[in-house]
Amino acid sequence: MEQDRLAIIVSKGSLDMAYPPFILATAAAAIDMECMLFFTFWGLDVIHKDKIDNLSVSIAGNPGMPALAKVAGVVPFGTKMVSSMMKNQFANSHVMSIREFVSEAKELGVHMVACQMSMDVLGIKREDLVPEVEDVVGAATFLDFARDAKISLFV
Amino acid sequence: MEQDRLAIIVSKGSLDMAYPPFILATAAAAIDMECMLFFTFWGLDVIHKDKIDNLSVSIAGNPGMPALAKVAGVVPFGTKMVSSMMKNQFANSHVMSIREFVSEAKELGVHMVACQMSMDVLGIKREDLVPEVEDVVGAATFLDFARDAKISLFV
Amino acid sequence: MEQDRLAIIVSKGSLDMAYPPFILATAAAAIDMECMLFFTFWGLDVIHKDKIDNLSVSIAGNPGMPALAKVAGVVPFGTKMVSSMMKNQFANSHVMSIREFVSEAKELGVHMVACQMSMDVLGIKREDLVPEVEDVVGAATFLDFARDAKISLFV
Repeated sequence: MEQDRLAIIVSKGSLDMAYPPFILATAAAAIDMECMLFFTFWGLDVIHKDKIDNLSVSIAGNPGMPALAKVAGVVPFGTKMVSSMMKNQFANSHVMSIREFVSEAKELGVHMVACQMSMDVLGIKREDLVPEVEDVVGAATFLDFARDAKISLFV
Repeated sequence: MEQDRLAIIVSKGSLDMAYPPFILATAAAAIDMECMLFFTFWGLDVIHKDKIDNLSVSIAGNPGMPALAKVAGVVPFGTKMVSSMMKNQFANSHVMSIREFVSEAKELGVHMVACQMSMDVLGIKREDLVPEVEDVVGAATFLDFARDAKISLFV
Repeated sequence: MEQDRLAIIVSKGSLDMAYPPFILATAAAAIDMECMLFFTFWGLDVIHKDKIDNLSVSIAGNPGMPALAKVAGVVPFGTKMVSSMMKNQFANSHVMSIREFVSEAKELGVHMVACQMSMDVLGIKREDLVPEVEDVVGAATFLDFARDAKISLFV
């Protein structure tokens, strides 16, 4: 019997939005679903060697954050502070870092692929990406996988 | 016969992004679909007792907003003004408030559940959430529901 | 035999988030899928006559952008600069503009529809939208199409 599939497009490069794809994919792989994470646009930051350990919290989905955190959105040092706070909160709750999640996902057989077109537009090369990335593909590859998936999400 | 299902992950806490999940879920429930709203990360603000009536407009998806509204993104008073404007626009168009939508969704049998892990990370307790919330669950519960859903969305 | 379907809700009005729906829909149409793009909230900017050529880059999913680009989020002139840079990058990579993508999508038979309720709330009229828009509909129309779709996404 074919495995049920989960297909996720990862389009955001913020620390907060980097978590849901990995939480869902590793949970799905654990119940024997076949998963694909398709990294595109800012989502490429999540698998970029030089950025994976320095993802920052976005103020986007969270305009209710305290004023300080909001200002942090335009003040680099402030962003760093809020992002550190969130990293600590994750660690205190025994949640893996994104780098650990990438390893875990790889071990569980999650297919992590990068969008060719976005890489061209943003000037990112294959060697800029973490080695866990399986392939660099086009949108058609994602569609091929997702059309037979039980769940498809755009994060 | 089993009901068709709609599964939505609610990950944003802004006023503008709080609407789509409720509009879709109540419309789906009205045509007899079984719906689950899974609130996670900033989406927990939408069902947070102290925040549900004070959600603010996000500038995220809307960089074309007038300069004033943009600055509002980092100036608390400005945000309040823009958010009030939007609330009035919704009211003038006879669209329910988010609090009214939560009641309506509950009445229509929409399952509103909160993400355990996000609550741990953000330090939110069960009693902080509105009573309409049915349960606090893990990602596996969402996947279980969504893998048999006709439509799954990440908002 | 019925065609496989792709259903996408377009809720963001930023230049970067305007691309994924069109890239996916045109790629899907090319492999003979039937596609619907449902434009709602800020997504209406993407098909707004006066805005389609002036969409700006969002800092939302990309808090890791250089400080300058972040400040651009609240400084109109700065936004214009970053957006121009991105438009050039797309053009250099031979990627169509959003206006060209709308034409291409229309030619490929992609159904582009606008959300009635959002138009009411935001005060947008039918004649404000580009002529390629097929219809103005409610959420129920989207659900009807999406419940039989192989892939449904919320962008």
